[in-house]
Amino acid sequence: MSQPPKQSADHPVPTSTDVARLAGVSRATVSYVLNNTSAVRISEPTRRRVREAAEELGYVPHAAARSLRAGHSRMVLLPTSHVPVGPLYSRFLNEVQWALRALDYTVVQYGSLGLGADEAARAWAELRPVAVLSLGEIALSAHGVQVLKRSGAKAVITLGPQRVEGAHALVMDQRAIGSAAARHLLERGRRAIGVVVPAEPGLELFSRPRLAGVRRTVTTAGEASGARVEPLTMAYDEESAARLAAGWGALGLDAVYAYNDEYAQLLMRALQDAGVDVPGECAVVGADDLLLGKLLRPRLSTVHIELPTGREIAELVDRVVRDPDGEVERHDLMAAHTVPRESS
Amino acid sequence: MSQPPKQSADHPVPTSTDVARLAGVSRATVSYVLNNTSAVRISEPTRRRVREAAEELGYVPHAAARSLRAGHSRMVLLPTSHVPVGPLYSRFLNEVQWALRALDYTVVQYGSLGLGADEAARAWAELRPVAVLSLGEIALSAHGVQVLKRSGAKAVITLGPQRVEGAHALVMDQRAIGSAAARHLLERGRRAIGVVVPAEPGLELFSRPRLAGVRRTVTTAGEASGARVEPLTMAYDEESAARLAAGWGALGLDAVYAYNDEYAQLLMRALQDAGVDVPGECAVVGADDLLLGKLLRPRLSTVHIELPTGREIAELVDRVVRDPDGEVERHDLMAAHTVPRESS
Repeated sequence: MSQPPKQSADHPVPTSTDVARLAGVSRATVSYVLNNTSAVRISEPTRRRVREAAEELGYVPHAAARSLRAGHSRMVLLPTSHVPVGPLYSRFLNEVQWALRALDYTVVQYGSLGLGADEAARAWAELRPVAVLSLGEIALSAHGVQVLKRSGAKAVITLGPQRVEGAHALVMDQRAIGSAAARHLLERGRRAIGVVVPAEPGLELFSRPRLAGVRRTVTTAGEASGARVEPLTMAYDEESAARLAAGWGALGLDAVYAYNDEYAQLLMRALQDAGVDVPGECAVVGADDLLLGKLLRPRLSTVHIELPTGREIAELVDRVVRDPDGEVERHDLMAAHTVPRESS
Repeated sequence: MSQPPKQSADHPVPTSTDVARLAGVSRATVSYVLNNTSAVRISEPTRRRVREAAEELGYVPHAAARSLRAGHSRMVLLPTSHVPVGPLYSRFLNEVQWALRALDYTVVQYGSLGLGADEAARAWAELRPVAVLSLGEIALSAHGVQVLKRSGAKAVITLGPQRVEGAHALVMDQRAIGSAAARHLLERGRRAIGVVVPAEPGLELFSRPRLAGVRRTVTTAGEASGARVEPLTMAYDEESAARLAAGWGALGLDAVYAYNDEYAQLLMRALQDAGVDVPGECAVVGADDLLLGKLLRPRLSTVHIELPTGREIAELVDRVVRDPDGEVERHDLMAAHTVPRESS
């Protein structure tokens, strides 16, 4: 290779050696200039010559090579879900990414399709992220956390129902949502509470603890209350809702907590079409406090969920990256309160 | 370093050299075993010894180092939007990622917040992706495409309203959506068509060509039709919709194409609350053909958008990666047709 490489069918990639040769400087100088290292004094004409040579050859530094040399990256790995998580949660995820990027992290989303917990941790470790923010679909084990930390991750943070040994835990207890809905319905004098459990796979992560929250609250109310809970499987389509509504009379329910506002909208329409009076014969409560609930008639009662802001999460990641040996923290997130409207 | 490294406060990362020493083999053997290279014959006991040493030390291979050695990666870079793109488009994006992962690509989403077109191309090139699938928020230039290809990208594919020189183009013409809505409304005898333009920043990418599509269709219908188009700015909140509805009489409109089904739901509710009869006094058409449109009363007319499947996109990426010097293709995507219901 005595000539600067030309673009061929195989697209040979120009290297910093090529740039150094064309600019008549050392490879180290190329690296200092293009990585904006201010610690090394390099004259402006030399800097200009290096930049021009890089431009001419179409050379850009290699982030992976740079992070290999530096021994760490600015990559935050965000294992992502392919679950239809709904507008509230997906807005939250967007916010987290936005805030991390504002702190100069490169956010890499990574799917973990079909991997077990320890396999997933190893696959993530291969990318050498500086931080992993695990959202709970994969139940990271203490071993997985160790694999990640040994491969250089300074922060391993889990969001989910439980804490994992060695990781900073943001505990989001979905049961609080079901509890809030059940408390509200009991206060309104309802005693036979249906709970919609979405048929869509992947949503168990949310639906199971919400159902458990309803059950816990009803149990706490005591047998004297005479209240009962009935899980109702429903898919997010008109046919499934219509089928459930058609058999409503036989269920003997006077209330339903319908998982979230979207399922609630669907079920409420089906109940109305089947001649069930809402809230007269059956109270309906959703969750997420979406705008659509206010547009329905009757206006939909809902559970408002307070998530942390994306900025709070990003700042926690940054704090742990800077001080990885600080106390392993546990934060309880997610407050929930009912927003009563006309449907309950 | 005569001892296998221990976990210290600084988390020194075990290397393949450490594994080789512990297993009593060469570094090359470690690499062959852990990267599952079948081309080299290595006995099962040796393989086992290497795997056990890696496990004991908590060593995992470094994806970046591996791709540096191999000279290419399996990374597909997906520059992502922070625009609230709506459920239809975000489902499409999920599908694309899912399908790419099924083809064994690592999908990296990457935000391009505040970068110009050529800066963005350079930032992407630093990650050395094997393919870039640009969704059009950043108008890649021919120069940007070249920078990416020179740094090793075998496929640069754009999705957007226009094609870019050197890139494979999936042309998605949003104007088709506005045109379909306008044609339907003209056929129903409507002559004064409002077009909702979301106030939310970032949605211009979709809203501007949709408005242009309405205008084109109305212009084509000719002056003799006496039809006119009125852009209406509206934010996705109740106050904005109520304000628009309160001044409705003065606008003299008999129809509105409300950007998408969600904005249409919001505006239709506001119009009904303001005493405007839908569709008697004003026809309403949305877009995206979401389930919610069927749940409204009157049932919402909409424009159904046919997007390519995620699998089709992923297979195109894979085809171009395997044959980067094939013909640069242009595919026209996105067919749109009206689904008339009761609101128009």
